[in-house]
Amino acid sequence: MESKSRLNILVIHGPNLNLLGQRETNIYGSTTLGQINDLLEREAQSLDVSVSTIQSNSEGELVDAIQSCLGKYQGSILNAAAYTHTSVAIRDAIAAVSLPTVEVHLSNIYRRESFRHHSYIAPVVLGQISGFGARSYLLGLHALVGYLKDSNLFISRSPS
Amino acid sequence: MESKSRLNILVIHGPNLNLLGQRETNIYGSTTLGQINDLLEREAQSLDVSVSTIQSNSEGELVDAIQSCLGKYQGSILNAAAYTHTSVAIRDAIAAVSLPTVEVHLSNIYRRESFRHHSYIAPVVLGQISGFGARSYLLGLHALVGYLKDSNLFISRSPS
Amino acid sequence: MESKSRLNILVIHGPNLNLLGQRETNIYGSTTLGQINDLLEREAQSLDVSVSTIQSNSEGELVDAIQSCLGKYQGSILNAAAYTHTSVAIRDAIAAVSLPTVEVHLSNIYRRESFRHHSYIAPVVLGQISGFGARSYLLGLHALVGYLKDSNLFISRSPS
Amino acid sequence: MESKSRLNILVIHGPNLNLLGQRETNIYGSTTLGQINDLLEREAQSLDVSVSTIQSNSEGELVDAIQSCLGKYQGSILNAAAYTHTSVAIRDAIAAVSLPTVEVHLSNIYRRESFRHHSYIAPVVLGQISGFGARSYLLGLHALVGYLKDSNLFISRSPS
Amino acid sequence: MESKSRLNILVIHGPNLNLLGQRETNIYGSTTLGQINDLLEREAQSLDVSVSTIQSNSEGELVDAIQSCLGKYQGSILNAAAYTHTSVAIRDAIAAVSLPTVEVHLSNIYRRESFRHHSYIAPVVLGQISGFGARSYLLGLHALVGYLKDSNLFISRSPS
Amino acid sequence: MESKSRLNILVIHGPNLNLLGQRETNIYGSTTLGQINDLLEREAQSLDVSVSTIQSNSEGELVDAIQSCLGKYQGSILNAAAYTHTSVAIRDAIAAVSLPTVEVHLSNIYRRESFRHHSYIAPVVLGQISGFGARSYLLGLHALVGYLKDSNLFISRSPS
Amino acid sequence: MESKSRLNILVIHGPNLNLLGQRETNIYGSTTLGQINDLLEREAQSLDVSVSTIQSNSEGELVDAIQSCLGKYQGSILNAAAYTHTSVAIRDAIAAVSLPTVEVHLSNIYRRESFRHHSYIAPVVLGQISGFGARSYLLGLHALVGYLKDSNLFISRSPS
Amino acid sequence: MESKSRLNILVIHGPNLNLLGQRETNIYGSTTLGQINDLLEREAQSLDVSVSTIQSNSEGELVDAIQSCLGKYQGSILNAAAYTHTSVAIRDAIAAVSLPTVEVHLSNIYRRESFRHHSYIAPVVLGQISGFGARSYLLGLHALVGYLKDSNLFISRSPS
Amino acid sequence: MESKSRLNILVIHGPNLNLLGQRETNIYGSTTLGQINDLLEREAQSLDVSVSTIQSNSEGELVDAIQSCLGKYQGSILNAAAYTHTSVAIRDAIAAVSLPTVEVHLSNIYRRESFRHHSYIAPVVLGQISGFGARSYLLGLHALVGYLKDSNLFISRSPS
Amino acid sequence: MESKSRLNILVIHGPNLNLLGQRETNIYGSTTLGQINDLLEREAQSLDVSVSTIQSNSEGELVDAIQSCLGKYQGSILNAAAYTHTSVAIRDAIAAVSLPTVEVHLSNIYRRESFRHHSYIAPVVLGQISGFGARSYLLGLHALVGYLKDSNLFISRSPS
Amino acid sequence: MESKSRLNILVIHGPNLNLLGQRETNIYGSTTLGQINDLLEREAQSLDVSVSTIQSNSEGELVDAIQSCLGKYQGSILNAAAYTHTSVAIRDAIAAVSLPTVEVHLSNIYRRESFRHHSYIAPVVLGQISGFGARSYLLGLHALVGYLKDSNLFISRSPS
Amino acid sequence: MESKSRLNILVIHGPNLNLLGQRETNIYGSTTLGQINDLLEREAQSLDVSVSTIQSNSEGELVDAIQSCLGKYQGSILNAAAYTHTSVAIRDAIAAVSLPTVEVHLSNIYRRESFRHHSYIAPVVLGQISGFGARSYLLGLHALVGYLKDSNLFISRSPS
Repeated sequence: MESKSRLNILVIHGPNLNLLGQRETNIYGSTTLGQINDLLEREAQSLDVSVSTIQSNSEGELVDAIQSCLGKYQGSILNAAAYTHTSVAIRDAIAAVSLPTVEVHLSNIYRRESFRHHSYIAPVVLGQISGFGARSYLLGLHALVGYLKDSNLFISRSPS
Repeated sequence: MESKSRLNILVIHGPNLNLLGQRETNIYGSTTLGQINDLLEREAQSLDVSVSTIQSNSEGELVDAIQSCLGKYQGSILNAAAYTHTSVAIRDAIAAVSLPTVEVHLSNIYRRESFRHHSYIAPVVLGQISGFGARSYLLGLHALVGYLKDSNLFISRSPS
Repeated sequence: MESKSRLNILVIHGPNLNLLGQRETNIYGSTTLGQINDLLEREAQSLDVSVSTIQSNSEGELVDAIQSCLGKYQGSILNAAAYTHTSVAIRDAIAAVSLPTVEVHLSNIYRRESFRHHSYIAPVVLGQISGFGARSYLLGLHALVGYLKDSNLFISRSPS
Repeated sequence: MESKSRLNILVIHGPNLNLLGQRETNIYGSTTLGQINDLLEREAQSLDVSVSTIQSNSEGELVDAIQSCLGKYQGSILNAAAYTHTSVAIRDAIAAVSLPTVEVHLSNIYRRESFRHHSYIAPVVLGQISGFGARSYLLGLHALVGYLKDSNLFISRSPS
Repeated sequence: MESKSRLNILVIHGPNLNLLGQRETNIYGSTTLGQINDLLEREAQSLDVSVSTIQSNSEGELVDAIQSCLGKYQGSILNAAAYTHTSVAIRDAIAAVSLPTVEVHLSNIYRRESFRHHSYIAPVVLGQISGFGARSYLLGLHALVGYLKDSNLFISRSPS
Repeated sequence: MESKSRLNILVIHGPNLNLLGQRETNIYGSTTLGQINDLLEREAQSLDVSVSTIQSNSEGELVDAIQSCLGKYQGSILNAAAYTHTSVAIRDAIAAVSLPTVEVHLSNIYRRESFRHHSYIAPVVLGQISGFGARSYLLGLHALVGYLKDSNLFISRSPS
Repeated sequence: MESKSRLNILVIHGPNLNLLGQRETNIYGSTTLGQINDLLEREAQSLDVSVSTIQSNSEGELVDAIQSCLGKYQGSILNAAAYTHTSVAIRDAIAAVSLPTVEVHLSNIYRRESFRHHSYIAPVVLGQISGFGARSYLLGLHALVGYLKDSNLFISRSPS
Repeated sequence: MESKSRLNILVIHGPNLNLLGQRETNIYGSTTLGQINDLLEREAQSLDVSVSTIQSNSEGELVDAIQSCLGKYQGSILNAAAYTHTSVAIRDAIAAVSLPTVEVHLSNIYRRESFRHHSYIAPVVLGQISGFGARSYLLGLHALVGYLKDSNLFISRSPS
Repeated sequence: MESKSRLNILVIHGPNLNLLGQRETNIYGSTTLGQINDLLEREAQSLDVSVSTIQSNSEGELVDAIQSCLGKYQGSILNAAAYTHTSVAIRDAIAAVSLPTVEVHLSNIYRRESFRHHSYIAPVVLGQISGFGARSYLLGLHALVGYLKDSNLFISRSPS
Repeated sequence: MESKSRLNILVIHGPNLNLLGQRETNIYGSTTLGQINDLLEREAQSLDVSVSTIQSNSEGELVDAIQSCLGKYQGSILNAAAYTHTSVAIRDAIAAVSLPTVEVHLSNIYRRESFRHHSYIAPVVLGQISGFGARSYLLGLHALVGYLKDSNLFISRSPS
Repeated sequence: MESKSRLNILVIHGPNLNLLGQRETNIYGSTTLGQINDLLEREAQSLDVSVSTIQSNSEGELVDAIQSCLGKYQGSILNAAAYTHTSVAIRDAIAAVSLPTVEVHLSNIYRRESFRHHSYIAPVVLGQISGFGARSYLLGLHALVGYLKDSNLFISRSPS
Repeated sequence: MESKSRLNILVIHGPNLNLLGQRETNIYGSTTLGQINDLLEREAQSLDVSVSTIQSNSEGELVDAIQSCLGKYQGSILNAAAYTHTSVAIRDAIAAVSLPTVEVHLSNIYRRESFRHHSYIAPVVLGQISGFGARSYLLGLHALVGYLKDSNLFISRSPS
């Protein structure tokens, strides 16, 4: 019963994120993808929602994952990593399933190479959170759950 | 004592945000800037931090506001609105005071006119949150306080 | 009574227009801003409408002026001068107050430097009049009053 | 005698304007090109000038029309429609005959596709009026007659 | 009776297509424009529709031809040839008459000079067929008749 | 015997096309990919050729599919969907196998976002058919079979 | 007999060139198009060739003129004037008839507005002569006759 | 006496032109630079002027050569070859000495790589002749001598 | 008397320059704006001229300051800081008052982000000095005073 | 002794500067390069430093000159003239020798053709001085000597 | 022992390289991928190192392959083929594993279509070898082994 | 005899390479150009070929050097350094002599400023080797000798 109405959210990690925290921890930090998933799990429990996670280096598998949300998840959190900047297929998948998606990035992509400033995905998602490390995911979870439970704060068009 | 160590955060609202919720509420939503400030105040209390707010339509006054943070605030949340896309002066002010700043936007700026896709401010802030309506501010507050209290989750350079 | 139904129009002059006719009259002509305002006043009387005028060198004050139209004016005539080409804030103010605005320019901006060929303001105004000297304002007044009194001649979409 | 000194003005309508008001009047408005010509005729009488009108879908015929002004007309009002954006030949004709020309557009061309924001014609005309529907022509007539009868208000170079 | 309900389709050939098959047949093939028109005529009979054909080297005459469809034809097949890449006037004519149009090209325009990759016409037609020689016309006829007789297969927006 | 000389054609569907007709049928139409394949099968029978179909969300699998044509198929029909605009690998596969390929699109890609106006694939295919919904595939089948059975109508270089 | 082998050359003048020498002779010089034709006629006689001349303001008529060369002329001299920069149709006509053409310009087009620096025609002609006033035509005649009578000096590819 | 008033013209050949006719004569033609100089010498005699020639692979030496014209030559013919597209120094030298210069090219530079379509030199010379092989030099000589002896045919500004 | 003929010069400091030397002195140097003003004062005395100084973070106030020069100052030294790259209004003010202005920058702006390489102001000032720290102001003072007292060394147009 | 510690500075003049003051003195001024060198010599004496000067029209010789500074000069003043905009070789030489260099220009390069607005050299020099005629050199000398004797005023990074 | 210290190198072949030498050997050469691998094996033996090889048409599998180097290989040789120009994911994988990688191409990519001139991979590899056919791999092996055994010849920054 | 058939190869070093290893050896490495030439000499002996070397800072001398290969060398190795990015003259010289040339760079030019990513030379050479320090030359020698002795491994067109 309750489980029925409980929100199910899919967290999708893109290419190379499986390496997080496994190499050169002095540079990348020592948080692994597993630890990020644990943080998300705990935060989800406190919000009384369920999260599942998936990681893939393959654009096609990420498209599959997004399509798989239909009928199983009420929304998704997506760090498409490198595919953010090159994949129209992932963009189309998000648009096709029409479920609320939050785009997150560990780093501030606007401080990096100019080709990372453009996201094919941003125009089809609810919103974007970029630059807060692992916390970007947690903020994304709050943003998505907030939207799904109470979209009053959202406005469709605004002065800024 | 405690108040001494309490974090002080300045929330800076840019041009035209004073009109929020006062016109065409069917389009822009009915949340006013006052209500957003109240939401921030309440959330700040729950996080045991202090927030002050300021709004101006003038680029120069926004520069003044950012400069005024020195010695008084530990960080800021900035919705520079239209100046996001045109102001090098605000960017320079943020870089000069070197305090952590979170850039927020009510709407998803990547769904709007192409000139709104570029932010002069993004490369000098901690991170950017865009598209979650009034909740963008609350997420920004969490992001900033999280960073100030515990920057462990942050990573300086990452695969995505 | 009558004054109630009389149309009130704000004429907004942007930066450096206060210098009109005061320097190098052989180049700029000898018409001062005061004289333009007088011409507008007289033309307004003949059209049975009221005009107020304002000039500022500050982008923020021009945003304030546009916002101040709400509830007081039925439309505005705007020569944003240099800010025409750089101000998203003024554009947003016009869009936010949603009152009919006519954009005017003394000179033909398409005969000048290429950066003056682009107007941030044009896409949110009723129409643009450029190149007729002080008469641009008078034509703008006629265009605005015509629109407010009788919008039959206007068409929302046309072959050219 | 008087007729001798009476100003003769040619109004030139470009491609597809012959369809005005004949199709989908809910979209384009119901004003026909004939009615616009009548409005111009009446306004001309009130200004004590003569207007002739011509319409063509052919770039070459429009060039011919502009050339034909020499010795017969003191100025022209030109809505080059689609050729505004593609015709160097029309531009060259205007520059060659060196008679004052006012460029008019029914719609606000800066609200439309980006290729309509550029006018080959604007740099060689007196000024441009865009966005006021059929009234654009009437304002253009006033602008041209004003210039021809009294060019005092015009200034060759200005702060904006 | 039957003739009444029979579909009438105009096939419009643009500049230089009159030379087809008349020169350098080793390069251009030996099919003449007359033969293409014959092929279209025969195919039209098998589909129980009528086709008329027209060819012109003049942009203005092509605009006239498109306008002439109103009330006489239910759709058109257009090979605008060189004007595909330069004519806003033809685009506007197609949009103004609002009849279904199929854009065809003998050669694959995407294999040729880069200025031929852009079509002003494509965004206002039903669809585009490019690269199949004379067969492009026949395919265009099938596409148009299919659309006019049964638009079930058409979808307004799709994943690709 | 006869089966030996029968033409075998591979129809390749790219990413997200598996969702066709399964969601928001009011927007996307209710034709499923299965139904399109059935339509192709029936049309193929009437043309006395064989068609096989494949769909994948993975760029690499689409490259594999194109390579697999060698020795088994005489030509292919390809709707690369999102990969049309981003995949050099698919382009290279088509060029490498050197079998005639027809590029098809359900929607008119020139009416959509500007990044969809460029096709990496178009310069290496026989021709492109865009905008006729499910019928694009059927027209593509006719175009390909026509070419394979009788390439007389094709011309290598033409005035348009 | 002799007349048979005599070279026939068509000189084609584009839009607005009919105005040459008729207006503002202090600016444009006082040489009329008639005088240029006379100069060409005399020079042709001294070279023992025939020249015919044509002028049109219409792109389509210029295409017709170029097509008309087939079977009647051995080459042409073309000053396409404004159409130099906008006409793909004229380019295609030159390429289709495949007769040697020399492009001439009265003024040095590289000293003028940047849109005049690009010629659609240059890549399909023998060569270009620009900037020598009426003498450009005479030089063009010599170049063409030289080529037709003795192409030894010509080289297909060179270090510069 | 006579020699005093005789025109002296310097012909300047740029980099790699010394190789003309010495290699791959099937491609480049067999005319050597020496033969071109001979042709120029003979043509000069027939025009009763003197020509000197110089060739260098060095940009600096070409600048020196142009400067050396002061006081010794009345004009120059320049084939700057590769430096046409890269040398501001040569352009500045031509502008500084302010002697009439004719720019010539053996090949039609508009048929070659796009970086060869731009000439730094064209805006400071009298005119440009491109595409007539060795005859380009002879035409250039005629153009220059014609200008120096009789500039009547030249016009400072023209419709094309 | 003497004071009457003494040159008065206004030094205008743009946004964020008030922070100079007050933060992170290891990075920005420890020279404060006050100290720069003192250096200018002393240098001015040695040159027997007067300097006044002003600083503002507001674009509008900088425009006011430039306008205020009329009748009071004979020239100005301007470090527009961030507004260098975004302000057409400041450019217009400089052009309107038509007093000699020297543009100075502490840092070498050509070593910084590419958006800082463009100055709206440079085309309307006497000259630009960039990259010499506080000494840029002193050099600017010498340049301006030199120009005002003796413009012999200045040349209006030069080879470089 | 003293001579040992005396600073030696090389002043390098680029192409065409040898013509200064020798032609069209009404335009370029009458100051010759020799006079500029004399001015520099005198100013150097007053600053107790030594200057040597060199001029060349050759890019390679300018590279040689910059390389020759190693071990002989403590810094250089460079007016690369035309090579400013085209020479990566000179830029690389400056970077390789790593001696402080001041870039100077007689004219304000930002008032000239747009290709002169970009300097390959600016990013590798100490600073740039542009627009003050011969005085640019004298200011450059002061800037360089100031830097070499006392670099306190210089700051490595600044708000503007 | 020895095997322990022996260098292990992974050679990664991207999409469509599996077709090498199997089709149109007159165009592509007859060397198959197997033969290239054999050549590499033999060369590796002569250099006393081990090579493994892998080929995939899938971007994701290539990312996996690069990640798999961690702990198993000391460096890699990568011919990413089409993905060179489109894959940020492969670039990120190379940067993440931080092992020396040599980019190789069979053909000279700078002689091909312009989209092949840009490599996402080049900025994160040791170096690039392009244009030497199968020998590019052998040269790449030498370059990598040379670097791994003796990096003395390498320099981090150089004049060219 | 044998010496007759021995391959002679010219190694050409461009501007500033003479400084290699002579300054700031901590940055540029301590390998001098002389040492690179010695390495090449030794490697050439082991390959039984002859190498000569030349260095120049002058573009013209490098053109001379390339031309001098005719009849004396069978191929060349070229590090054009800065001229790689600016010299069409060197490109033309390589194309004119039509001898196999290998382009080498010490540093990985794709890791440096964006203007170094483009090579005018790459499209006319055999192949490019970039990023392996002095070893780039040795690899280039192997590539060239391999090509000259056995071009079997080379393929004219390939999938990557």
